[in-house]
Amino acid sequence: MKPQAYREVDMNAILDIAPASASVAPALAAGLRRVEQRFREQLETPIAPVAELCAHVERYRGKMLRPTLTLLSGMAVDPALAETEIPDAHVTIAAVIEMIHMATLVHDDVLDEADVRRGGETVNKRRGNESAVILGDYLISKAFHLCSTLESQATAMRVGEITSMVCEGEMLQVAGAGRLDLSEREYFQIIERKTAALIAVACELGALHAARAESVRVVSSRMYDFGLRLGTAFQIQDDLLDLLGAEQVVGKPVGRDLEKGKLTLPAIHHLATLSGPARAASEKLFREGPGSAEGRLAIRQALERTGSLEYARATASGLVGQAKALLADLPDSPAGASLEALAGAVISRQF
Amino acid sequence: MKPQAYREVDMNAILDIAPASASVAPALAAGLRRVEQRFREQLETPIAPVAELCAHVERYRGKMLRPTLTLLSGMAVDPALAETEIPDAHVTIAAVIEMIHMATLVHDDVLDEADVRRGGETVNKRRGNESAVILGDYLISKAFHLCSTLESQATAMRVGEITSMVCEGEMLQVAGAGRLDLSEREYFQIIERKTAALIAVACELGALHAARAESVRVVSSRMYDFGLRLGTAFQIQDDLLDLLGAEQVVGKPVGRDLEKGKLTLPAIHHLATLSGPARAASEKLFREGPGSAEGRLAIRQALERTGSLEYARATASGLVGQAKALLADLPDSPAGASLEALAGAVISRQF
Repeated sequence: MKPQAYREVDMNAILDIAPASASVAPALAAGLRRVEQRFREQLETPIAPVAELCAHVERYRGKMLRPTLTLLSGMAVDPALAETEIPDAHVTIAAVIEMIHMATLVHDDVLDEADVRRGGETVNKRRGNESAVILGDYLISKAFHLCSTLESQATAMRVGEITSMVCEGEMLQVAGAGRLDLSEREYFQIIERKTAALIAVACELGALHAARAESVRVVSSRMYDFGLRLGTAFQIQDDLLDLLGAEQVVGKPVGRDLEKGKLTLPAIHHLATLSGPARAASEKLFREGPGSAEGRLAIRQALERTGSLEYARATASGLVGQAKALLADLPDSPAGASLEALAGAVISRQF
Repeated sequence: MKPQAYREVDMNAILDIAPASASVAPALAAGLRRVEQRFREQLETPIAPVAELCAHVERYRGKMLRPTLTLLSGMAVDPALAETEIPDAHVTIAAVIEMIHMATLVHDDVLDEADVRRGGETVNKRRGNESAVILGDYLISKAFHLCSTLESQATAMRVGEITSMVCEGEMLQVAGAGRLDLSEREYFQIIERKTAALIAVACELGALHAARAESVRVVSSRMYDFGLRLGTAFQIQDDLLDLLGAEQVVGKPVGRDLEKGKLTLPAIHHLATLSGPARAASEKLFREGPGSAEGRLAIRQALERTGSLEYARATASGLVGQAKALLADLPDSPAGASLEALAGAVISRQF
């Protein structure tokens, strides 16, 4: 599994950061338990090899960021939901979105294992890959099946649309790999699709199924925009951690993106500030540096010199500010406060 | 692309076989053109690398067996549909099912390319694989999105259910690979899921959207059973061609299934008739034979000796008989006659 899967936001940490939201914690925890249960029920099957693999998927679970956002968005739009039981629709939507997220992780896994296999793996390893491709497809199918139990055509269409968009983002990333002239615009096009869109729709659909009929369009579209900014900031922070934070805290090698030829915001900004021989030198460094500790240090120093790390941090911070501002019209509530805290935590996390 | 993709039934050949159905040919051809158009429209995207790959998918196109079955099933249940324009729902359903079929082919492609890559392929080849995983996911998402435009919850649930079932079948096949004790029951469990279920639902949904309300349950479930038998016979024939027909007619190596450790009906029957040293000798032959022309000849002779090829042919033929019998209650119509001819053609095809 790619290590990013474990770098989700820690909800407990967030609830610590934002004591205002503690009153929403029991409702949220109860809701997340129901999401986990629905997730498991939907994957129940008498077909033994499928059941075994579905059990494995549990290992890929992060902190359920997306289900948390669906439930909190619902409660923030209609604070009464926090007082009673969270509606079934929210539980279903949260499970659907988490299942699609898991599918993308499982398929990323295939591509990651493919690298390892090029080094000469066993037939068993290959069979593992076959199963992972099929398992990802199974999770997507089961997600859409679960989604269609909702009797909400709007929801089903949106989930299909956004899942296609996630694929588009991943395809753009593959097409852009190795390109040292990737623009900032292209970077945002990629991360908004591959990461932020699913996070955004988690918020949108939580709101859609909670808002009053007369305000549903405005509120759910605003919550999509909130999630899009939060999700984009989340990915920028993820990319920053790949460059910076990992070695000491996360305990995984840094510079993995550059090693795969993936330029992220700091590197794009850095190159854009340079021209001529200076740019050529940095391009060489990006190509050859990630493999060694000295190279990685040199990359970091180069990014510092042009203020590119600070630029990426400021961009993420700006997006979080915009996200928080989009919550302004919501009723005051512990769930709303939690969403605000969550948005802040997305860029303060170090893991 | 795996060669099976090109071994679909040739509709022109079928219409030749069954001159009774010629009067349905114009309506069918017009319907299939609309299916192709809907397929293309649904995959239109401004994202260039996605658009390029979707264009490639056209190469994977077979003879549109599944869309043909959806359209013919609709017209067989309500012959008036052949007189007027085929309803939009049928066109959409046919495109949805073909898209899901394409997705499974694209993902099979990934696994096949993986074999080639083990022999030491380039990085470009690997990027091709990454793209193929994502493209398959994109096709599935787009299929479900298109399906949700139908405003038919029953259809959406059924498509999700059957797509999961296809994955279960593929998973069972992966889990069963290399097992020389695979039973006939397990073989049918695999092929009904991985192949026949999607063919069956193509028939079922064509009927579902054509039948009168009072008969819809009976008729659509009977058409599912028709498709399940036709699809099972189709796969048995596919497996027979892998053992027999390929070298001379299809121009591809035979014994590919055995080479991958996949037992199919003739081999399962053959082993079941043997015990002790005779069985051990055949098991050895199945393991070591597929790699050489002599080995393949020896396998064929062994299967002949125990009447196992004939057994598989008779089984497929029996299923086609059952399928045809299930059409008995349909009104007499050119579309019904075409379905009958199609069922027969499934086992007479040599490519």
